[in-house]
Amino acid sequence: MKLEDLIIQIKNKNSFLCVGLDTDIDKIPKFLLNEDDPIFSFNKSIIDHTNKYCVAYKINTAFYESHGVNGWESMKKTIDYINDNHPEIFTIADAKRGDIGNTSKMYAQSFFTEMNFDSLTINPYMGSDSVKPFLEFKNKISILLGLTSNIGAEDIQLKTSNGDFIFMEMIKSSKLWGNHNNMMYVVGATKTDFINKIRSEIPDHFLLIPGIGAQGGDLIEVCKHAFNDNIGIIVNSSRSIIYASTDDDFAIAAANQAMILQAQMSAILSERK
Amino acid sequence: MKLEDLIIQIKNKNSFLCVGLDTDIDKIPKFLLNEDDPIFSFNKSIIDHTNKYCVAYKINTAFYESHGVNGWESMKKTIDYINDNHPEIFTIADAKRGDIGNTSKMYAQSFFTEMNFDSLTINPYMGSDSVKPFLEFKNKISILLGLTSNIGAEDIQLKTSNGDFIFMEMIKSSKLWGNHNNMMYVVGATKTDFINKIRSEIPDHFLLIPGIGAQGGDLIEVCKHAFNDNIGIIVNSSRSIIYASTDDDFAIAAANQAMILQAQMSAILSERK
Repeated sequence: MKLEDLIIQIKNKNSFLCVGLDTDIDKIPKFLLNEDDPIFSFNKSIIDHTNKYCVAYKINTAFYESHGVNGWESMKKTIDYINDNHPEIFTIADAKRGDIGNTSKMYAQSFFTEMNFDSLTINPYMGSDSVKPFLEFKNKISILLGLTSNIGAEDIQLKTSNGDFIFMEMIKSSKLWGNHNNMMYVVGATKTDFINKIRSEIPDHFLLIPGIGAQGGDLIEVCKHAFNDNIGIIVNSSRSIIYASTDDDFAIAAANQAMILQAQMSAILSERK
Repeated sequence: MKLEDLIIQIKNKNSFLCVGLDTDIDKIPKFLLNEDDPIFSFNKSIIDHTNKYCVAYKINTAFYESHGVNGWESMKKTIDYINDNHPEIFTIADAKRGDIGNTSKMYAQSFFTEMNFDSLTINPYMGSDSVKPFLEFKNKISILLGLTSNIGAEDIQLKTSNGDFIFMEMIKSSKLWGNHNNMMYVVGATKTDFINKIRSEIPDHFLLIPGIGAQGGDLIEVCKHAFNDNIGIIVNSSRSIIYASTDDDFAIAAANQAMILQAQMSAILSERK
């Protein structure tokens, strides 16, 4: 998918919501455990009920890998289901990959070609030659960790070097490896103090913002700092949507949570015009 | 596996060689493509012929993931084959994972429990709470990226902060999260200038050293700087062993390359005594 198709979708749906499919076998409704593939069955219902409110789905690969080969099958069925039924929706493999060049190329083949995700999150700690192989794939978007929302961000990302934070040094370098059409950055919603700073460095890049909901970020505050002329953000919510209920009504409860977030987004967008 | 079992194996075999199973369908002998699972068939032959010379196998997960679900099946068959036939050999999932706490826990379950690897490489860029979930698994070893051998190491790892390199700041912090029994560090063999510095900071931790062979590191030089009282290193070679020949004799050629490296290691060890 091209970035411009995502922007059109955001404007059509009045939404910049991403639903995170962090699907945990221990948290899904118990009656689904009788299905052949409970994780896929859960995802399918969530997708069927939330797709009109969101512009993206983010699959957290760890939750699938924890079930080994079977988990990768559930992941493949899920991405295929989205691509077959909702090809307009932007898909994100939240896999945080990155390695030396020939290995990064293999990861790119895995998620961009074999699995056919539109985008992939990338850990940039190994630097330029670990990221560039991902950028060679046409109509695919590499989403680099910009600044994460967890406490451990202090250990490396928030150290200072040459008078600026390491994460800012990384953004300054890495923005030159690609462009705003093939790169985005992950920026934690709990870090609004830093979003202005990031926006002034990369005014045109989209930001993927997790941490609304379970992680405590505030939507209005985030939008105030992070919007650009093309909206420029995708806001992810996982647990507060997909586990809104663990009963028979889980998919309707998830739809309702997604609908509320979309309505909040629509209100923010209309006030902006 | 406990670290002490790895140390015993190193002393028994006079080897600290790790064979890297970076198995690429485009590089294995063509006649194997007729097999049901060419990647597993290749690995099985390599393992059958090299196991007496090495103390560890390192599976580079990217090469398997590039084939999606089938690739994960090949990976599972490979790790099961090693565990079933050579339980004394130390196994490494070179996956460079790391994410917020609940996600890192899922990756740990994947590689430590579901796949039953002895160890996993971890990208520490997200800091303490992204690493600690891995350390909670008993008799498993977390191998953090210390300093990588690629050019991109300059972009973050070799920046300076508080008068020291970022990678050193990371080692100083992270060594307190666990201990030398449940943590190791990846240090590129091309970075001998830095190995002394790393050794003085973490005298007791094992180092996993890739980059001998295809990446140009020198074995004697590496050992001079990196050995500790328990040897303290595992040296990985991938391409120069497993692709020593791409003909019918590939497994014998691989065994010969592994034997030569083991003989070099044995010589270095005997001169040390």
